[in-house]
Amino acid sequence: MTNLSHPTPVARAVGASGPNTLERHSAEVLKVSTRSRPSAVAGAIAGVIRDSGMAEVQSIGAGATNQAIKAVAIARSYLVEEGIDIVCTPSFIDVAIDEEERTAIRLLVERR
Amino acid sequence: MTNLSHPTPVARAVGASGPNTLERHSAEVLKVSTRSRPSAVAGAIAGVIRDSGMAEVQSIGAGATNQAIKAVAIARSYLVEEGIDIVCTPSFIDVAIDEEERTAIRLLVERR
Repeated sequence: MTNLSHPTPVARAVGASGPNTLERHSAEVLKVSTRSRPSAVAGAIAGVIRDSGMAEVQSIGAGATNQAIKAVAIARSYLVEEGIDIVCTPSFIDVAIDEEERTAIRLLVERR
Repeated sequence: MTNLSHPTPVARAVGASGPNTLERHSAEVLKVSTRSRPSAVAGAIAGVIRDSGMAEVQSIGAGATNQAIKAVAIARSYLVEEGIDIVCTPSFIDVAIDEEERTAIRLLVERR
């Protein structure tokens, strides 16, 4: 699990392997914050996709989700040069931060 | 072209059929603003996917992009009940608003 957010509390995924989540493979989880640099997150996504074919990006709030989706767009441009075509599937996921439940956006990124 | 934003200026897509854009089919363009209701946008996405198999969602700024990605997540939940599995591919696109060029996020939504 790679944390790309800066000095934010450690988030623990709740229900990530629960009955409502279709985990076809385990995917590395990249946590993105408002202050994450999209190009840095993109590099991380591209690396995980090259290694395992699948990455999971999590964000909480509009600013972080915007950085996350920009990162996926940039990762696409990196990988398309290598002949790798990625798609993403967004969903909602409940995560616990400081014992409080928050709704995060989960972008599952995988080869088409 | 359906405009789901409220009293915002009319956006005109620039370069949407330019040489850098891979348009495999023409997709209906849904413009999302910060004030768009994600469930309403989701219904529109689901309708366009049912009709044509492909929808394009455009947003400018973090708030609008957050609404757009939430809409895709909700549309996924609507369509999965009908056995339709959608994925999205984000990219950047330049759009002209009031003769000023802005960078929008373009989510191409299509059946897997």
